[in-house]
Amino acid sequence: MKKVITIGRQYGSGGREIGKKLAERYDIPFYDNELITRAAKESGFAEETFERAEEKATNSLLYSLAMGINVYGNQDFGFSGLSLDDRIFLAQSDVIRKVAEEGACVIVGRCADYVLREREDVFNIFVRASMDFRLKRAIQEYGVEEKKAADFILKNDKRRGNYYSYHVGEKWTNLNNYDMVICSSSMGIDNSVDCICAYLGE
Amino acid sequence: MKKVITIGRQYGSGGREIGKKLAERYDIPFYDNELITRAAKESGFAEETFERAEEKATNSLLYSLAMGINVYGNQDFGFSGLSLDDRIFLAQSDVIRKVAEEGACVIVGRCADYVLREREDVFNIFVRASMDFRLKRAIQEYGVEEKKAADFILKNDKRRGNYYSYHVGEKWTNLNNYDMVICSSSMGIDNSVDCICAYLGE
Repeated sequence: MKKVITIGRQYGSGGREIGKKLAERYDIPFYDNELITRAAKESGFAEETFERAEEKATNSLLYSLAMGINVYGNQDFGFSGLSLDDRIFLAQSDVIRKVAEEGACVIVGRCADYVLREREDVFNIFVRASMDFRLKRAIQEYGVEEKKAADFILKNDKRRGNYYSYHVGEKWTNLNNYDMVICSSSMGIDNSVDCICAYLGE
Repeated sequence: MKKVITIGRQYGSGGREIGKKLAERYDIPFYDNELITRAAKESGFAEETFERAEEKATNSLLYSLAMGINVYGNQDFGFSGLSLDDRIFLAQSDVIRKVAEEGACVIVGRCADYVLREREDVFNIFVRASMDFRLKRAIQEYGVEEKKAADFILKNDKRRGNYYSYHVGEKWTNLNNYDMVICSSSMGIDNSVDCICAYLGE
């Protein structure tokens, strides 16, 4: 298995856990928050700026690009047509391309499927799950208050969906974006990992 | 494996072939055109009427139902608020529910995922594939003229997508409708079958 595996996931679906287990199974690097840290360090932006801006998108990056606004504008020149969030996304994308270049790995979130679309060794997975399954996980594993859990999940999904469509220009839930979609609540997390491995091989 | 497997599929993706192989692997019935025949016979409609109306949807069934138009109206009463196509869909749905009641099987197309949404023993698969893969299959396996193949594929997908959204009220390509989505061009048809079996178990 010499692929770069990207994972998109609904909140509470266990997509991150599936990614972590895949990385362990294949003994390859796993990138999630580490990715932000690395991106922050390499680009010189402060780490907390990355965390604040992460997955919070309001306007269209593609639109900015289409309008010919300088992608490479940065604070050294004292101005920029791109928002801070957009420049962070571009810095993150650079990191994603770099780690993919280094070899097989698992990358969760951050539109990595889109960022790496030119590579042929990438396998794009999306993990979804039933609302019941996600409610249980949000409450038990992440300590979300029971009353607010449903709302919290929907808001998180909306944020991720907006982030994806803002940067990619496609719907997050369009199955055509992925090589494989798994419903983790149908068969459980470990079975999902086995299934993906059956697909990817040794 | 005691499940009813439903398969939605893009034209030329090999979804039907995957379904056939799954049915052979588990030694369970496979329903595709046989389903139409059976539905036609049981309902008394002529078989050719079914074939003509198949997957050709123009207006909203859900709308008709919401407006309180008589679902069970039929030609015996000399009038009906539902079109012939709608009544055929309802007759087909009855057949799908009946074969699912009889036990594990594979059902390709016809919104079977939606028709069987109340059952808990159903596993919904969608098969997609790259355009290159589908072009090759359309030309080599179905004898579609090379020049017209791309257009033919897109038209077929559009027809299937319209059919689904007409009857189900959801986008055909929304990954939330399925337990699993497979890209057959990424890993090949036999590997896809192995993977689904790894997921479903013995």
